[in-house]
Amino acid sequence: MALLVMKFGGTSVADIERIRIAAGHVKREVDAGHQCAVVVSAMSGQTNQLIEWVNEASPKADPHEYDTVVSSGEQVTSGLLAIVLQSMGIAARSWQGWQVPVFTDDAHSSARIIDVKTEELKSSLEANEVAVVPGFQGLGPHNRITTLGRGGSDTSAVALAAALGTERCDIYTDVDGIYTTDPRVVPQAQRLDKISYEEMLEMASLGAKVLQTRSVQLAMVHQVRVLVRSSFEPPDEVPAGEEGAGTLVCDEDEIVEQQVVSGIAYTKDEAKVTLIKVADKPGVAARVFGPLAEARINVDMIVQNVSADDRTTDMTFTVAAAELDKALDVLKGLKDDIGYADLRGSTDVVKVSVIGVGMRSHAGVAAQMFKALAEKGINIEAISTSEIKISILIDAAYAELAVRSLHSLYGLDSA
Amino acid sequence: MALLVMKFGGTSVADIERIRIAAGHVKREVDAGHQCAVVVSAMSGQTNQLIEWVNEASPKADPHEYDTVVSSGEQVTSGLLAIVLQSMGIAARSWQGWQVPVFTDDAHSSARIIDVKTEELKSSLEANEVAVVPGFQGLGPHNRITTLGRGGSDTSAVALAAALGTERCDIYTDVDGIYTTDPRVVPQAQRLDKISYEEMLEMASLGAKVLQTRSVQLAMVHQVRVLVRSSFEPPDEVPAGEEGAGTLVCDEDEIVEQQVVSGIAYTKDEAKVTLIKVADKPGVAARVFGPLAEARINVDMIVQNVSADDRTTDMTFTVAAAELDKALDVLKGLKDDIGYADLRGSTDVVKVSVIGVGMRSHAGVAAQMFKALAEKGINIEAISTSEIKISILIDAAYAELAVRSLHSLYGLDSA
Repeated sequence: MALLVMKFGGTSVADIERIRIAAGHVKREVDAGHQCAVVVSAMSGQTNQLIEWVNEASPKADPHEYDTVVSSGEQVTSGLLAIVLQSMGIAARSWQGWQVPVFTDDAHSSARIIDVKTEELKSSLEANEVAVVPGFQGLGPHNRITTLGRGGSDTSAVALAAALGTERCDIYTDVDGIYTTDPRVVPQAQRLDKISYEEMLEMASLGAKVLQTRSVQLAMVHQVRVLVRSSFEPPDEVPAGEEGAGTLVCDEDEIVEQQVVSGIAYTKDEAKVTLIKVADKPGVAARVFGPLAEARINVDMIVQNVSADDRTTDMTFTVAAAELDKALDVLKGLKDDIGYADLRGSTDVVKVSVIGVGMRSHAGVAAQMFKALAEKGINIEAISTSEIKISILIDAAYAELAVRSLHSLYGLDSA
Repeated sequence: MALLVMKFGGTSVADIERIRIAAGHVKREVDAGHQCAVVVSAMSGQTNQLIEWVNEASPKADPHEYDTVVSSGEQVTSGLLAIVLQSMGIAARSWQGWQVPVFTDDAHSSARIIDVKTEELKSSLEANEVAVVPGFQGLGPHNRITTLGRGGSDTSAVALAAALGTERCDIYTDVDGIYTTDPRVVPQAQRLDKISYEEMLEMASLGAKVLQTRSVQLAMVHQVRVLVRSSFEPPDEVPAGEEGAGTLVCDEDEIVEQQVVSGIAYTKDEAKVTLIKVADKPGVAARVFGPLAEARINVDMIVQNVSADDRTTDMTFTVAAAELDKALDVLKGLKDDIGYADLRGSTDVVKVSVIGVGMRSHAGVAAQMFKALAEKGINIEAISTSEIKISILIDAAYAELAVRSLHSLYGLDSA
């Protein structure tokens, strides 16, 4: 008998019919002898409705009250899933964040989990009662309800798995695993059996929206093995174990045959900012990026051309598309201070990333990439790299072509 | 400066616009120097939606989980009202049932309030922070959320007023007070300035659905003066005090000029059961009403005719219309045991009640009533009385005629 954490996202508990299917997955694991703690999101659409009400009540709502209102969505599904499980003859009860409790810090609406108390929960589980825990919510230091921010239910699930000391956490979602790239762009994309935490982190933060980044970080720190799998398959037709169902996010040591490149991610959620003819002298970068940081705008890729004869240069960097206007406003206000001839912004760009822990031991991955893109006539506007990732910024029109070419280049196409 | 409890029902917080108007009423009282604790229901319709989900999940849902799901409606409005108040520059915070806490017994879905802890709440109120408390919900002895049953928010408000030691509790609703009878039936119905607890209890349990019976009982026990008033009037156009706004439910000693009859109530929610030719001998009543009580069916009026020559009698009694089928089933199963010739059930009846504490000191109220109804050709099928009430059961077709006649008879028509 093992202890298992299962998590169902919003589309997997969208209505009572879906909740019944989710309960079927839980039943399969219970029947296989597992003790199950189940983390649930709100019914899809409910959280948006709640946020809409809050925004209508006040555009600058108190985060304490925001959390009180918005956390109710998960409360509802936790109770409903417990009821459905009971109707199937499975002992179950819901545990709200304040009942477990899931202690968080005081950062309402984007709180961090500090500690998950498991004494009571464990005795309930040991009495073979399924614990249904609403994701996304916790209890702050002043006895108020907190929430973890969008997608926080993944984090709740992993934190619970870590606290319970279970090695496996099954994340049921509306896709059946992690793919080498977006199957809508590349039909030859393959589902990965396993992916390392670090690769998943790069995938998660780069647009593969299956798992929330924080949950992957947490899983890596606590060595929780996360199985991403589909809740849409009939519960009876999938095995109770972890093999063959979905993608296991795990330590890279567990992955025997490591590919050089595991996947190609892309995101259209980028904007490019270019400062034309900036003085090329010490301190300019600080005058540009200091105020942006103060305005809480994250800058990602930065490219600075070599200096021209007039000792000026063009400086290009990327920000999230949603923050482009804010970034341009900040920089317009600093025109005299920074000293530039012109300021340009564009959202007509896409970031494509090649990811793989195998890069560490394989030289030439980047060179291959640049050559392949050049052959297709795709111009690279910016580059950033990490130990296991190469990202490029290109014209959005070439996004699909670039992703398909690179997917094929690194041998990821299915036969 | 006084401490005031205000309660807003479901239609008074039905959407953000309505919540804003409710907040306006709170602001008026805050501006008048009151410390305010505000009890809110769920947005109208929300509780029904939540109950629908629960019933869809399982027709026999665990009451613990029912409460977890259904209490979320009040949680949402408490947060939203706090946000709207803050946006008007009024310090406010929500207090969930488990945060106050409002301790109840373990009778999930129809829990009774045992104790309301007010230490923390009071320091918040003394710091001039409006406390917004979701009605209907509490905390059971096992740290689970409980609910008080339909209409429980009135009870929450009165319990909070009693615990806080405030003498006044304003119940804002979609009517502007308690009337001498239903104004839809009798246009001459008048709003009462004051009504005694005991009269209100009879009115509440007899179909005047403004205040929940339990809340009136609680108010009577703790001598909380309850002002029933409209939330639909513009907040700026009503006085901050209690005079002239709505109906005050209070001790009868406070009512100087007590009418003999204060109001005429009626309810169509009754059904009549008749057993034809029951043996008229000791023990029969027990054989009829014992099994009904065991089936948790409340029997109200009972009439037994004088015995006929064959030593049999007809026995008539009333039950709630919703329980008629169940009652008939029970009695069918007991045909041989009881011994009756025929069993008849009908929902085509209405109960009309004349209520007034003045009856205690005035004889002849009933005689006047029977005479007036006889003059209109209305047949009385059953009668029950208490010290301050006379109820009759009549054919439903005569309901309006009877109510109008009695309203006029006791001098309740407005000039």
